[in-house]
Amino acid sequence: MSAADPIANLQTLTRCRSVTPAEGGALAALEAMLLPLGFKVERMVATEPGMPDIENLYARLGTDAPHLMFAGHTDVVPPGDETSWSRPPFAGEIVGGELFGRGAVDMKGGIACFVAAVARHVEQHGAPKGSISFLITGDEEGPAVNGTEKLLKWAVERGETWDACLVGEPTNPDALGDMIKIGRRGSVSGKVTVFGVQGHAAYPHLADNPVRGLLPLASVLMNPPFDGGTAEFPASNLEVTSVDVGNPATNVIPAKAAFAFNIRFNDTWTADTVKAEIVRRLDAAAIGSPLRPERDPARYDITWAERPSHVFLTRNNALIASLSGAVESVTGKVPKLSTTGGTSDARFIKDYCPVVEFGLVGQTMHMIDERVALADLETLTQIYGTFISRWFDNALLS
Amino acid sequence: MSAADPIANLQTLTRCRSVTPAEGGALAALEAMLLPLGFKVERMVATEPGMPDIENLYARLGTDAPHLMFAGHTDVVPPGDETSWSRPPFAGEIVGGELFGRGAVDMKGGIACFVAAVARHVEQHGAPKGSISFLITGDEEGPAVNGTEKLLKWAVERGETWDACLVGEPTNPDALGDMIKIGRRGSVSGKVTVFGVQGHAAYPHLADNPVRGLLPLASVLMNPPFDGGTAEFPASNLEVTSVDVGNPATNVIPAKAAFAFNIRFNDTWTADTVKAEIVRRLDAAAIGSPLRPERDPARYDITWAERPSHVFLTRNNALIASLSGAVESVTGKVPKLSTTGGTSDARFIKDYCPVVEFGLVGQTMHMIDERVALADLETLTQIYGTFISRWFDNALLS
Ligand SMILES: [Zn+2]
Ligand SMILES: [Zn+2]
Repeated sequence: MSAADPIANLQTLTRCRSVTPAEGGALAALEAMLLPLGFKVERMVATEPGMPDIENLYARLGTDAPHLMFAGHTDVVPPGDETSWSRPPFAGEIVGGELFGRGAVDMKGGIACFVAAVARHVEQHGAPKGSISFLITGDEEGPAVNGTEKLLKWAVERGETWDACLVGEPTNPDALGDMIKIGRRGSVSGKVTVFGVQGHAAYPHLADNPVRGLLPLASVLMNPPFDGGTAEFPASNLEVTSVDVGNPATNVIPAKAAFAFNIRFNDTWTADTVKAEIVRRLDAAAIGSPLRPERDPARYDITWAERPSHVFLTRNNALIASLSGAVESVTGKVPKLSTTGGTSDARFIKDYCPVVEFGLVGQTMHMIDERVALADLETLTQIYGTFISRWFDNALLS
Repeated sequence: MSAADPIANLQTLTRCRSVTPAEGGALAALEAMLLPLGFKVERMVATEPGMPDIENLYARLGTDAPHLMFAGHTDVVPPGDETSWSRPPFAGEIVGGELFGRGAVDMKGGIACFVAAVARHVEQHGAPKGSISFLITGDEEGPAVNGTEKLLKWAVERGETWDACLVGEPTNPDALGDMIKIGRRGSVSGKVTVFGVQGHAAYPHLADNPVRGLLPLASVLMNPPFDGGTAEFPASNLEVTSVDVGNPATNVIPAKAAFAFNIRFNDTWTADTVKAEIVRRLDAAAIGSPLRPERDPARYDITWAERPSHVFLTRNNALIASLSGAVESVTGKVPKLSTTGGTSDARFIKDYCPVVEFGLVGQTMHMIDERVALADLETLTQIYGTFISRWFDNALLS
């Protein structure tokens, strides 16, 4: 059965031009792999006013508990300048033991391996003693509004529940087996505007330069650190990512100045408490000026980006042990249990069941010449297969 | 003789649409006023590659020393939204004792009054015991490249020398007689770019946020003050006029960040020493970063705007006393001798002869509904007339 070969699966998937929001044939190809394995496959189109419709896929094999979900996405980021690629980004070409293609590691490769692992499991052991499902979105690399979050709600409304989830994102920095992600920091973004009084640079006493007020506000958000990290998480970190005044006239003192920031925060905080700390720091640093000498919190305005990413940490030992043990038995390496890096769709799934993340090596993701070693595809398929066996054994024992 | 009426003179001048770089008929109208008074009038067109040609005017009455120069400009800033004006900006309409028009105070009004003062002097006393000249540019409100500086050189090459100069810019903050300008601060502008290492906001240890390096550099230029002021000058003052990163992605740490600044400096400094102090402060504040912990002056780059304005202070007692005494005898007020405010073309003239500035009330200059009280035009004409008599009397005595 061809679905047992992760290389063939990935070649099929990388040949689909599924750049967000296009389905590009990728979900249809996945459906064609899953149907012969006995999956019940459903396609769900999510809509949002003013945004393109997005196709998503949910497939389940079996009807009983325990229920293991594999989550991921078939959409990919744009290839960039296609002529800069050594091999075409949507051809699935294999050169020197590597398969080239946009999405090869992020994360059509992870899907290809999990499909192969399930196919081998069914070949060797028959249907699993419980259920396995695929929850696959076409909107992870885009605004993620019509993706995993809505697909989860749609499935729950149809009575679906899960006992655990594995997200197949590339989690390994250097080599397969390096790292499992068991949590993610939260992320909050905002913009601070400082208001002054416009004037001529030769008459500063008649003006109020908002840059003078902005500097301490931007400084106090970056120093001191928000915390020193926790047992499972690195320290929270805030970066001022832009400062923009846009005043072209060097003899004019501008009327306002703004900066944007992003904080990645650990489980010391929630999105709400970290916002409150940011406002507390800004209020304390909102200095006066010759025109308005009193400390004046009304001198600045803050707007928050929509939809913060919430922090989460998975503490389900059976799930983590099954995955970590599978990695070690196949690769001989004990993977690091990490909470570093950016956000992922796991932040939505954690509200429904315990979730961990493990996939390929991320080094070439989002880059020209994204590619994966064929050996890694085979190794990951074996890890996923071992994980499936161990997780069901564990779940049935408990 | 109509040139003795400052109101008529100003109506004629304001009806010329001489928005920089257009001559707009203003210099021709001035020439028509000066020729009947006995002036020898010359027009000088200044050129510069890539810039519009500019018409300038030089007129001299008499051939002997002592030689008094009146300097100014007939060009005006754009009127802005003409429909917002109560009266058309180029009609010279009089309403409620005020003459409306772009340039009414800055500074066609000053020219109109000095022409009237000379006309009355010639009527009453005949030709002056010496020479009076007009040095009038059409490029003061623009880049000032084809204006006073070139016109002075042109005149000097033809053998002209002067003993004193009065610039007719509006110098009075609130009422005629408030203020004479006897000097001007210098002005230097520059731009500082701070270089970092671009990266993802979730991996700050792999990046180097240039905003972190920028904040102390911008701060240290604005605090502490450069000096506490001098006997004749207010304190030097630096304003950061813009900060620009232009990074639209809140999850990206930018590669570089830049800010622009302008300093108005007093006679504690020269343009060169103030630049050196700025560089000294930046070097001392160029902090390291996790990626580059050492203090590293190479982390930033500074570029200086072309053509700094040099500071100057006039110490010619006879010139200042003649003008101050004229103001007091006509208005009953002792004018403040000031060095405040922006730069003016006096910064070029000071290299050739002592220079002071006195003109109308500046409140409406560059604004919608720029206008001048008719009473002020008559008063300023009397001040200028008294000044002319006193200055020649003084110069001939010494
Ligand atoms: Zn991904
Ligand atoms: Zn002017």
